[in-house]
Amino acid sequence: MRKVAESTVRRLSLYLRFLEEFEGQGMGTVSSSALASRGGTTSAQVRKDLSFFGSFGKRGLGYPVPELAERLRQILGLKRRYQVALIGAGKIGSALVQYRGFRQRGFDIVAIFDSDPGKIGRQWNGLTVLDVEALERELGRNPIDMAVLVTPGEAAQAVTDRLIGQGVKAILNFAPVQLSVPDDVVVKTVNLALELETLSYALANR
Amino acid sequence: MRKVAESTVRRLSLYLRFLEEFEGQGMGTVSSSALASRGGTTSAQVRKDLSFFGSFGKRGLGYPVPELAERLRQILGLKRRYQVALIGAGKIGSALVQYRGFRQRGFDIVAIFDSDPGKIGRQWNGLTVLDVEALERELGRNPIDMAVLVTPGEAAQAVTDRLIGQGVKAILNFAPVQLSVPDDVVVKTVNLALELETLSYALANR
Repeated sequence: MRKVAESTVRRLSLYLRFLEEFEGQGMGTVSSSALASRGGTTSAQVRKDLSFFGSFGKRGLGYPVPELAERLRQILGLKRRYQVALIGAGKIGSALVQYRGFRQRGFDIVAIFDSDPGKIGRQWNGLTVLDVEALERELGRNPIDMAVLVTPGEAAQAVTDRLIGQGVKAILNFAPVQLSVPDDVVVKTVNLALELETLSYALANR
Repeated sequence: MRKVAESTVRRLSLYLRFLEEFEGQGMGTVSSSALASRGGTTSAQVRKDLSFFGSFGKRGLGYPVPELAERLRQILGLKRRYQVALIGAGKIGSALVQYRGFRQRGFDIVAIFDSDPGKIGRQWNGLTVLDVEALERELGRNPIDMAVLVTPGEAAQAVTDRLIGQGVKAILNFAPVQLSVPDDVVVKTVNLALELETLSYALANR
């Protein structure tokens, strides 16, 4: 498969959301222009994005909604559920554990770790916060597919190295640092202040 | 000024963070390759990103750290503070209000709104949660620069329209919908489940 840009993958995720809406409304087919206008893009972009993954739909008839949705779920790796560990039981971690969007898309937070004795042992959404010291033992018994990292910046790389040692190949990182990982590990960093800076940039350069 | 891609702006934000670290360590100059290796990119990319905004540094001598940091703060619109309203006093809102990264970069949450009578009137980080019904009156008295939207999806567009009516030109949107806004308003949407889908995509297509 050709290397696909992250921006393309993000649009596929959006198309899937719209297709699921359309499916809920009982629509059988959808045109690339309807999909485009719902997503704030162009029909040429929609056709180009989908063409990466083979041929869909019939010229003039549009895309079959349930089939395209199913194919996108396949492409996006959403035909299965993922076991996710949360590292860091702070404010953002607390919001993430209760975030319905994760479970709806197949991401189940199954373990929570922290290093703060005041937090270890507490119940969070039916899970007991575990001591991060026991990370290897716990993940050895109950392997996970992904980790969500919400530690302070200075702790993030060391925890990352330990996660990788346990075979974790995908990390969503909220810590305000660039993590260094081997080539076969994928990291997506979310920096909320940086999101606001794309806005301040836009305001300053209008 | 030429149109600059969002990915470039994001890298500028990262370079600024690294420059501030280097500044804290007393470094006077930094090479494009040192900046690149810290940010997981190439020195050609660093030079290209910075060349959008004029000429920096001297060939062979590297970039002057404090000057380049200052110039990036200017470019990113960070030479001032921003008054930010939070719409939606739920779990994610609660995490955002206490998120130190915002204040550190000049983004001050100065007002919080919600529609839930059980939340209106509560104290959050020194602010009283206000009734979203009073949005126009409050913002008329105390104008804001940006809004962070953390409402349910079905409420997001109506609140957006009201914010725009009050002159708000920049919105950070956590609601799981695409907002439609006029051309002079900038919206940045953060969808946390979608971030995990870029990971599941990578795992499924390795």
